[in-house]
Amino acid sequence: MASTGLKSQALQTNMGVDYVISYRFATTDKAVAAAEFEQLVQALASVGLATEVRNGDKHSVLLFVKVASEDYLFGEVYRSRVRDWIYGVRAAAPPKETREALQSEPLYEAERLRILYQLITNPVSEGGAGITPKEGEWKNVESVFALHDHAYNKDWIKKWSTSYFLKAEDLDDIRNRLGEKIAFYFAFTQSYFTFLIFPAVFGFSCWLLLGYFSPVYAVINALWCTVFTEYWKHQEVDLGVRWGVRGVSRIDTKRKDFQHEKEITDPVTGEKVQIFPATKRLQRQLLQIPFALGAACVLGSLIATCFGIEIFISEVYDGPFKSVLVFLPTGILTTVMPVLSSIFTNFAAELTKFENYETHGAYETALTQKVFVLNFITSYLPIFLTAFVYVPFGSIIVPYLDIFSLTVKPFAENEKQMQAPQTGFSINPARLRKQVIYFTVTAQIVNLGMEVIVPYLKRRGFSKYKQFQSDRAAKRGGTAPDASANDPPEEASFLARVRDEAELDVYDVTTDLREMVLQFGYLSLFSVVWPLTAVSFLINDWVELRADAIKICIEMQRPTPWRADTIGPWLDSLSFLTWLGSITAAALVYLFSNDGLGPDGNPSTIKGWALLLTIFLSEHVFLLLRWSVRIAISKLDSPGRQKERRERFLVRKQYFEENLSDLRKIPKMTEAGGKIDRASLEEDARKATLTTSTVEDRFWAHQKGWKETVQVGKGIIERVAVENGTDGKKYL
Amino acid sequence: MASTGLKSQALQTNMGVDYVISYRFATTDKAVAAAEFEQLVQALASVGLATEVRNGDKHSVLLFVKVASEDYLFGEVYRSRVRDWIYGVRAAAPPKETREALQSEPLYEAERLRILYQLITNPVSEGGAGITPKEGEWKNVESVFALHDHAYNKDWIKKWSTSYFLKAEDLDDIRNRLGEKIAFYFAFTQSYFTFLIFPAVFGFSCWLLLGYFSPVYAVINALWCTVFTEYWKHQEVDLGVRWGVRGVSRIDTKRKDFQHEKEITDPVTGEKVQIFPATKRLQRQLLQIPFALGAACVLGSLIATCFGIEIFISEVYDGPFKSVLVFLPTGILTTVMPVLSSIFTNFAAELTKFENYETHGAYETALTQKVFVLNFITSYLPIFLTAFVYVPFGSIIVPYLDIFSLTVKPFAENEKQMQAPQTGFSINPARLRKQVIYFTVTAQIVNLGMEVIVPYLKRRGFSKYKQFQSDRAAKRGGTAPDASANDPPEEASFLARVRDEAELDVYDVTTDLREMVLQFGYLSLFSVVWPLTAVSFLINDWVELRADAIKICIEMQRPTPWRADTIGPWLDSLSFLTWLGSITAAALVYLFSNDGLGPDGNPSTIKGWALLLTIFLSEHVFLLLRWSVRIAISKLDSPGRQKERRERFLVRKQYFEENLSDLRKIPKMTEAGGKIDRASLEEDARKATLTTSTVEDRFWAHQKGWKETVQVGKGIIERVAVENGTDGKKYL
Repeated sequence: MASTGLKSQALQTNMGVDYVISYRFATTDKAVAAAEFEQLVQALASVGLATEVRNGDKHSVLLFVKVASEDYLFGEVYRSRVRDWIYGVRAAAPPKETREALQSEPLYEAERLRILYQLITNPVSEGGAGITPKEGEWKNVESVFALHDHAYNKDWIKKWSTSYFLKAEDLDDIRNRLGEKIAFYFAFTQSYFTFLIFPAVFGFSCWLLLGYFSPVYAVINALWCTVFTEYWKHQEVDLGVRWGVRGVSRIDTKRKDFQHEKEITDPVTGEKVQIFPATKRLQRQLLQIPFALGAACVLGSLIATCFGIEIFISEVYDGPFKSVLVFLPTGILTTVMPVLSSIFTNFAAELTKFENYETHGAYETALTQKVFVLNFITSYLPIFLTAFVYVPFGSIIVPYLDIFSLTVKPFAENEKQMQAPQTGFSINPARLRKQVIYFTVTAQIVNLGMEVIVPYLKRRGFSKYKQFQSDRAAKRGGTAPDASANDPPEEASFLARVRDEAELDVYDVTTDLREMVLQFGYLSLFSVVWPLTAVSFLINDWVELRADAIKICIEMQRPTPWRADTIGPWLDSLSFLTWLGSITAAALVYLFSNDGLGPDGNPSTIKGWALLLTIFLSEHVFLLLRWSVRIAISKLDSPGRQKERRERFLVRKQYFEENLSDLRKIPKMTEAGGKIDRASLEEDARKATLTTSTVEDRFWAHQKGWKETVQVGKGIIERVAVENGTDGKKYL
Repeated sequence: MASTGLKSQALQTNMGVDYVISYRFATTDKAVAAAEFEQLVQALASVGLATEVRNGDKHSVLLFVKVASEDYLFGEVYRSRVRDWIYGVRAAAPPKETREALQSEPLYEAERLRILYQLITNPVSEGGAGITPKEGEWKNVESVFALHDHAYNKDWIKKWSTSYFLKAEDLDDIRNRLGEKIAFYFAFTQSYFTFLIFPAVFGFSCWLLLGYFSPVYAVINALWCTVFTEYWKHQEVDLGVRWGVRGVSRIDTKRKDFQHEKEITDPVTGEKVQIFPATKRLQRQLLQIPFALGAACVLGSLIATCFGIEIFISEVYDGPFKSVLVFLPTGILTTVMPVLSSIFTNFAAELTKFENYETHGAYETALTQKVFVLNFITSYLPIFLTAFVYVPFGSIIVPYLDIFSLTVKPFAENEKQMQAPQTGFSINPARLRKQVIYFTVTAQIVNLGMEVIVPYLKRRGFSKYKQFQSDRAAKRGGTAPDASANDPPEEASFLARVRDEAELDVYDVTTDLREMVLQFGYLSLFSVVWPLTAVSFLINDWVELRADAIKICIEMQRPTPWRADTIGPWLDSLSFLTWLGSITAAALVYLFSNDGLGPDGNPSTIKGWALLLTIFLSEHVFLLLRWSVRIAISKLDSPGRQKERRERFLVRKQYFEENLSDLRKIPKMTEAGGKIDRASLEEDARKATLTTSTVEDRFWAHQKGWKETVQVGKGIIERVAVENGTDGKKYL
């Protein structure tokens, strides 16, 4: 009982710790490790952080860090807010009094943690401690992480798992705890989930009433995809304003790894800047083309081969073990593909590093684009092959699949079993649908399971490996000490918890975002094949949102809160997939308009010009629709936009008022108006005529004051009228 | 000799006049006219303008206006500049001292005239005199115009007609005299002219070496069009910064004619605002669709009919008067088309008014879009008909052209002359080229002539009409007075000049811009038919730029200078034409790839799928190219961008410095760093342990100061290493 009590107490208090630094010295000389540790603590102390050290797991120490004085922290917060204002993230400067500024806009947890993290990791020249985990002189600093707030986590998971929809306040909560970047992921997924309800209902009705490959479904689906993408862009702005981060992506943070080629004096600021020539970077960027082609070839031929084998076995081969052999290609794919994928992903990362971007933003965008290309190939190519190669050209290609007879030769009883029928081969129209169902249901469920199970196994494995490493160390010199042996009893359970959390993985939000974007792709590109796609996704995403929350709370270290005002380059991927959807959906509808057998019931009667015309029209109608949707959505108002306008208005008003005092001193033209008919002006004019007497002066001296002008003018009007001997009116 | 002397003096002085107001009362009751005139002069005087009145031509008076006191004007200028700063057009506020502000950035002529024009025409509530020429109570105010600076004009024309290229300073000159809006037109045309050199040279080479319909030419031409369009967008920003007008299009000016439906309290500013519901406007905007369809039908059928008649006469008819009759359709087109065009243009203006836009900008954009649709039909439809109807379907359609025999019946000698050959009819492949040459050479020359001659004739006709009107008045009551009868001799020639200028037309820069954009359309859409197109345009535009200058100087009143930071909605037209060009050029190349006779030498063998595939590929390659060009151009730096960055940097620096004094007072975390190992902190910790003694406090009280943390940490490292009995290094 006492132990449970302590445990739950351990979950409830974080001992006022802001960050934990795990310092691992297993593979370093003890003197070096000790010297480095001293440097570390000194660096932290020099930026005003109080430290405590405790024994860590197997050859590591845990360094606990907290702010020595809250007053000093407030100064950092205030400075960060002023910087935001100067970079245009805030409309108005924070109030000049620090206390006042913090009262009018209290510090939230994520802001506090972000500022502290920057204090720890920023270079010394920018006022930080310059500690860069796992890099350079700090390679023994294994991780810098904040502690989970277990009470909040418990509430969070409980609340989410008992509600259907997340409210804006739920997202605000995430933002306050985990920062805007992660909150943007949850907001996106929630928005996507809400939007999915329509295609789920509509898709279900279509499935009941219109069957597969309905043009009506295709059009409505494309429209929905467009509305969703554009509406999300609209919402991003709104959330950015709501969370006060609109424009943060404009504040570039420099990459540490950036290699400059030369230093020039900036013509604008007069400061020395390190640059890397754009042309040289362009040359390096051009390597993306062979990279993309190479990846497409390698991954494509793997997929095409497996696809060919599968078709050969399932539709040509007629010998023993057919039911087992049919899983051969899937086996090849599931073993080889992840290996190839990770090789290419690493290669993409290397390539992006080689492209040598100056800022983190540019680096991430470039990497995301490459990763998207890789994922596009692995996720969608199999379906593309079925739809646009197997179906229209199946009867031409299948006879050539004999080459794959190699794979079944050991099992076949005679040659005939492995020979494609030279005539009368008919494609299997259900294949495409089965494949889409596999990717949109089975694969999603497997994925979801993997997300929770793989990190668990990884954690187990890693812990085993560490055990092994320490054991080996112990074997050479007696038993390894138990880390918790010297723990003060009242801290024991807390320290045990921290040691556990130190072992956890680091959460990467882009992986989850990528998953959602790829899922959206199936909907936009292929859901016309199987209109129930959205129903499956709706169920999956409800679970996904909760599973991600659990994953962050249990499987991962508490993520460092970062700011963001967009989901970034994935937005372009969404737009691209929507566009491509208008082409594939049209092609699929035409190709399969008669339940998979072409417009005349036979795939061979597909007309090239009709297919291309369908695609051409569909794409242009789509572009027109997107343009209208964009205009319509741009007209929508929203609380965030109103808030932004209000802030801008208030700032402008303040400017006006500040300048009004100056403006009042400056004479207005209307004030001059009153004086014009007064004697002063007449005197001026007369004097001018008398003294200088140029043509110009005399020209303006004819009439003195506006009243005389009126008199003379009236005279002219009168005279003309009199000379005509009649009123002008009669000329009408 | 004396007369000539006076004349040239009249051209040299403007008598210090800022604006001339022509007040015409021919059709108004004399008492009303006199009262209204008094109001007019009083309104002008009330905003600080000095006035002089002189006799005008036939039932009009000329009211000369100048600023009564330059000091008061400076106040207006300063106020206008502060407003610009607040709306973000300027990076920094002007210096607080008016004199200083005007010395650091002198007032230029166009700025002065713009501010004065606004002073005269702005509503009284906004500090203006509220005089709206030709509208409402001021319908007798015929025009408000500034006087030409003849000396400058002479220099301008002389300089331009003797130089091949215009320099940036020449454009600055125009901006200083005529305002940014007109300067943007000249800058655009000049930039277009410079860019034309490449396709002119390249087109000429292609014409020599590759002949017509060369795919190489088509690709390079599409690329050129894209580069030009994107580069111009880039240049617009640069010019906007150079002229200090970047962002002025964001400052909305309200339309006087805007009809509000209800008044609401703005949720942002708390002010009452007049609104017109967007949904209602959308309903009205939907009328554009029937309008566009109607215009396309009416203009299209007129063009198609004339086209049919022409083909019938030139290729079927074989009777007498053929050589004369062949001009019949051209005759019909040239008489009916302008009438229909102007009816539709008026209708478009009415429709745009009905759409009830709040701001001038929105109104102009909407009108320009409609005008572009009309011009698109009248300019390009004839060529579209030839290329995509006559050539591919000619042999099918021509037999049905018998219906047009009606037009030649009176002249034909027998039926046979009017009968289409039922077989063996072959299209005339030279027709398309002839048509393109007509539109790109003949029509351009005719147009250029018209621009100079039509206003001249109009001016003559209008002057005749006024003479007639006054004569009629005179007949009823004696002779009309000669306007110049009472002129003081020294002013006589000046007044005669002003009376002439009062009769001139008002210059509308959008007409000239439209002409350039439509010309660009021929290049992008059809130049593959005749690669010499650009050569013709190059010559034409050199003359055009000079002719426009002459037109503004001689044929038109001096234009009121307006500001602009873009050529506005025409930019979208350019992008659209470039895009469409990628489709038409591909189609033309495919259709006419064998010198007008289809890929196999016969138009009937055109393959639908091949045509569509060509278009599809061409369009997507184009979209990819455009994307790359955009990215590449966005990386370009320019003096304007540097200037903008420098200004922003200086403002930011100033902000930083202003806030630095506050920031200095706020403690930094690093300052706290020094204190952490001092006694104070240790005392704090000890005290805390003694008094409150929570788990948290005790947790942080183990080590006092960072030095103790280091000691304890080193101890742990030492202990682990000692327990292992070996150095960690060996584990590597």
